[in-house]
Amino acid sequence: MLRTIAVLVDNSPGVLARISGLFARRGFNIYSLTVCQTENPLISLMIIVVEADAERIEQVTKQLHKQVVVHKVTDLTEMEVVNREMALVRVKVKPETRLEILQVADVFRGRVVDLGRGSLTVEMTGDESKINAFLRAMRPHGVQELVRTGRIAMTRADS
Amino acid sequence: MLRTIAVLVDNSPGVLARISGLFARRGFNIYSLTVCQTENPLISLMIIVVEADAERIEQVTKQLHKQVVVHKVTDLTEMEVVNREMALVRVKVKPETRLEILQVADVFRGRVVDLGRGSLTVEMTGDESKINAFLRAMRPHGVQELVRTGRIAMTRADS
Repeated sequence: MLRTIAVLVDNSPGVLARISGLFARRGFNIYSLTVCQTENPLISLMIIVVEADAERIEQVTKQLHKQVVVHKVTDLTEMEVVNREMALVRVKVKPETRLEILQVADVFRGRVVDLGRGSLTVEMTGDESKINAFLRAMRPHGVQELVRTGRIAMTRADS
Repeated sequence: MLRTIAVLVDNSPGVLARISGLFARRGFNIYSLTVCQTENPLISLMIIVVEADAERIEQVTKQLHKQVVVHKVTDLTEMEVVNREMALVRVKVKPETRLEILQVADVFRGRVVDLGRGSLTVEMTGDESKINAFLRAMRPHGVQELVRTGRIAMTRADS
């Protein structure tokens, strides 16, 4: 099962290597990882998606808490969250397929962000399954290039 | 100056720690990093944004090429690229400010993805400066939570 962990850490060189090393030494395969600045310039946020069961996550969470550079660890997996990732997808187009591709992109609420002679690039946001569904729809036309952000997540607001 | 490097690497445990260690040992401060799966399950893509001049990037690129796990290194900084990141921004709302916040989100082409009693969450895509401009507009209302992906980038199509 894919689990999503949010870790607030010191924003300084070496922290990323230390945290990713901690996961690597335990043989975790990281599915996606993003690290970015936060509103506080001294603190970075890492969102790590790994394939693991709850027990192993608990072990690694304990290890994370022992690091001085780690301020907070949250397992977002079981929480009510908004999950999002973004992809840029370059698809091959021909005059006779352009309209169909634009219509499919529109159904998925994608945005065309670049247009070349024989290709167009669509920006797509959503959870993984939505992005995978769009990719399945585009593969018969030819996916020339694909860049995805890792997953980011935010707990839902109290309603 | 912020520079954007794309690195294609083996998708296996420890690769991320090795690559980020290589940057850390040289004292690079990583502004953002994303690592994600590609169309090929054996290969991951890392997009690293660092503050550095061209000369230091050239040195680190040479080091990267020496790693067996590294397949390709591209400095996207000087190239014509589509730059994108995504943010989820939770803003405090009151009945009298809701309309204004929704209008500003609309101007920035944001999408409301969650709504609580006293807050709403906007999904925003664009380059850093666009996302920073939206954050500046929201701060007077109160930014309760912020999650950003790192930057992803794709070269522009031949026109």
